[in-house]
Amino acid sequence: MAKDFSTRAENYSQWYNDLVIKADLAENSAVRGCMVIKPYGYAIWEKIQATLDQMFKATGHSNAYFPIFIPKSFFSREASHVEGFAKECAVVTHYRLKASPDGKGVVVDEDAKLEEELIVRPTSETIIWDTYKNWIKSYRDLPILINQWANVVRWEMRTRLFLRTTEFLWQEGHTAHATNEEAVKESETMLDVYAKFAEEWMAVPVLQGTKTASERFAGAIDTYAVEALMQDGKALQAGTSHFLGQNFAKAFDVKFLTRENQLEYVWSTSWGVSTRLIGALIMAHSDDNGLVLPPKLAPIQVVIVPVFKNQEQLDLIREHVIPMKKTIEDKGITVKFDDRDTHKPGWKFAEYEFKGVPVRITIGPRDIEQGTVEVARRDTLEKEVFQMIDIGNKISHLLVQIQQNLFQKALNFRENNTFRVDTWNEFKNVLENKGGFIYAHWDGTSETEDKIKEETKATIRVIPLNNPRENGKCVYSGRPSTQRVVFARAY
Amino acid sequence: MAKDFSTRAENYSQWYNDLVIKADLAENSAVRGCMVIKPYGYAIWEKIQATLDQMFKATGHSNAYFPIFIPKSFFSREASHVEGFAKECAVVTHYRLKASPDGKGVVVDEDAKLEEELIVRPTSETIIWDTYKNWIKSYRDLPILINQWANVVRWEMRTRLFLRTTEFLWQEGHTAHATNEEAVKESETMLDVYAKFAEEWMAVPVLQGTKTASERFAGAIDTYAVEALMQDGKALQAGTSHFLGQNFAKAFDVKFLTRENQLEYVWSTSWGVSTRLIGALIMAHSDDNGLVLPPKLAPIQVVIVPVFKNQEQLDLIREHVIPMKKTIEDKGITVKFDDRDTHKPGWKFAEYEFKGVPVRITIGPRDIEQGTVEVARRDTLEKEVFQMIDIGNKISHLLVQIQQNLFQKALNFRENNTFRVDTWNEFKNVLENKGGFIYAHWDGTSETEDKIKEETKATIRVIPLNNPRENGKCVYSGRPSTQRVVFARAY
Repeated sequence: MAKDFSTRAENYSQWYNDLVIKADLAENSAVRGCMVIKPYGYAIWEKIQATLDQMFKATGHSNAYFPIFIPKSFFSREASHVEGFAKECAVVTHYRLKASPDGKGVVVDEDAKLEEELIVRPTSETIIWDTYKNWIKSYRDLPILINQWANVVRWEMRTRLFLRTTEFLWQEGHTAHATNEEAVKESETMLDVYAKFAEEWMAVPVLQGTKTASERFAGAIDTYAVEALMQDGKALQAGTSHFLGQNFAKAFDVKFLTRENQLEYVWSTSWGVSTRLIGALIMAHSDDNGLVLPPKLAPIQVVIVPVFKNQEQLDLIREHVIPMKKTIEDKGITVKFDDRDTHKPGWKFAEYEFKGVPVRITIGPRDIEQGTVEVARRDTLEKEVFQMIDIGNKISHLLVQIQQNLFQKALNFRENNTFRVDTWNEFKNVLENKGGFIYAHWDGTSETEDKIKEETKATIRVIPLNNPRENGKCVYSGRPSTQRVVFARAY
Repeated sequence: MAKDFSTRAENYSQWYNDLVIKADLAENSAVRGCMVIKPYGYAIWEKIQATLDQMFKATGHSNAYFPIFIPKSFFSREASHVEGFAKECAVVTHYRLKASPDGKGVVVDEDAKLEEELIVRPTSETIIWDTYKNWIKSYRDLPILINQWANVVRWEMRTRLFLRTTEFLWQEGHTAHATNEEAVKESETMLDVYAKFAEEWMAVPVLQGTKTASERFAGAIDTYAVEALMQDGKALQAGTSHFLGQNFAKAFDVKFLTRENQLEYVWSTSWGVSTRLIGALIMAHSDDNGLVLPPKLAPIQVVIVPVFKNQEQLDLIREHVIPMKKTIEDKGITVKFDDRDTHKPGWKFAEYEFKGVPVRITIGPRDIEQGTVEVARRDTLEKEVFQMIDIGNKISHLLVQIQQNLFQKALNFRENNTFRVDTWNEFKNVLENKGGFIYAHWDGTSETEDKIKEETKATIRVIPLNNPRENGKCVYSGRPSTQRVVFARAY
């Protein structure tokens, strides 16, 4: 595997792009802004999906599927939603092609123009609330707790693999409740799920909080988010959960009969994470030697590489590896035995290191004599000799250690790159020279927020949950403030 | 659960529609021809997906994801493919909406017209072969064995829930090979997978064979299919696997360097099944009392309904049910305990019968005294009293029996509705009065096939694999024939 790619220090952005391409995760397609997710990248997504799906079901949700197309008029029903979403989108206007009159290829058949244009969903609140309208008559029909795994399209002008693509894969939860409190609780529960997933599976520590009015989801009363810090000091939003109040119920006229026999609008939430998480995963842990994957989401957790000079040696090694592989797999671990004789061990070492396989086991004839194997961990690049005895448990523990180490390393990085700042000069200075999360006082106005963004490109990532009250002065305007909020430049 | 729906004898088509809607499987959406798959229907799809996905992986395939949009010009590359697919499709022509000048809602922004229109994929051969072109240089890059789970859109004029919808969910396998033989073998392997899945999981016996030229996939050299017989005597194609020869490699100029250092076009296959399988499942087994689901694909396999007069009795029952439920679940069985006090047992019996839950366990205070439960099976509607002892194994065996019985019943039905026919009058007579599969001689011409279709609506479903040679005369033209083929009217 070639190492001809940029280091983080040289060019972080290029390093990321090179990694994604050279580690066979994804590539750009013939369609502007749309990516091809290659098998190795998709295998990570499958692990993300499987884990989250289980967490959603454990919190009472079921999956369902709603149409990919949304009638154009649906977007206009919720005023701020149309602002946020109906602008940059893929519009279906016709439903037929015909042979071109010049005999070359096909052209749009103008006779097959749709009466109303259809939008390829950028998010599904509108089509789903149009559907829920028929499902909800009384409090007995509530709550509705549904999730959808789907593709969505947002016509992005500047795209980057995983981080921002025109089409992406995601899940979107859409729930309906009888009370304000229950809906708020649901948004918070799902934020918790996202935080737990980020920290325990992705090994990425996250800040939890709410968004300011200008960063809110189009149509939400409150947007909760989890925010992670990347190695270049920029923030990345890793999941959002929206309390939508009665906005969509009002837009689609969805009322229910309460226990007290009153007609009321339904309360709702929506929440989602996307293939963007793969981008976060890469940026948070990987290094100048290539990908580093947390064991819990690595498609291959352990690779076994035999070192041999001839077929006889390989046969001998195979005899020992087959039961060892089985012992490790019995611990629920994914193991690959790469016994190809077309590639040298050194080539394989570089390949699996580059692809972020958490543990590599090397075994040669001498190891077999001595009843040992050499174990290399990807996170620290350390090697150690293990006795073969009890190898299943040892590898299992090692994977747990690697998972914890990655989290701890990311947490240390975040702590070392989190700053409390009290003056505007310091604010600009930290942003310019260090990056990271900046806790600073803000006067609470969108005006100040906009100016800070204009001058520094920094935005308020979150107002942290359970934020301690503290009197201070806005770092920009000097006006009084009662709490610090978290600023950063962001992806 | 209301039973106010048509019987199969009264109106088979209406019976099917009623079932789908009233069993909460799916419904029509606000978008013409697109369905909403409701949680209960989607749970069946999840089981289908999980099972097939495992089978694909066991045969060496990986998942990946390709763009939903296909540039219009791609379709024109393969001559017969454009004929088959580019006609009725959703065409994206613009990428932006703007506020309407009249202030009401949004309109298409004519300044945001795409240079080349994008087609929402009806199938992905073209975009995938455009991608494979960059992945394949030499025989070392082959085979490529990839599957994609995705949504696709075909602009259907007449739609029916699950059976034919504008948007549907499916999987599409796309493989690339170094030799003709290997690609043919792959198509046959995947046909086997589909046949095995249909028979062992769906409990639906299928005929395996190849399609005639006029029924082939647009762009294929050979289309293999599995065909099932529905209760109204109509056939339903339950999966297809295509040997594409070098057609797409030629269209997208994908060559590889052979071991002998020659440049050759790559050989390929594609294969798919869709949410249509849910339609097949319903039509094959269900009855006038509602859904009948094969245990292996039922979202709920066992429901436990308590019969009680007061809270005290319910508490007592609960005490016994909780460990029993656990014992059954430990066998890998999905169990629901419906202890709601808002509905009477009779209502619940009807509900779960209608929704096709394979086994119902009823338990009341007297059962507890006697250490028994009442067990009802959905397939035969029989009830039996079981001793609680060893209940896990008993229920597990019962589910196996039900699965086998459903398959046997469907097989008997097919055998009773399969006819060997030698004259044209008999052919029309059987079709009109009995339906089913008709084995008849055919002269091998598309002309005869077309005429038969025109006069009777029957098509050749398959030329069976390993078809015995037999001299005879074409049932329509009287011309000589060497084998019988299978005719039926079809969905």
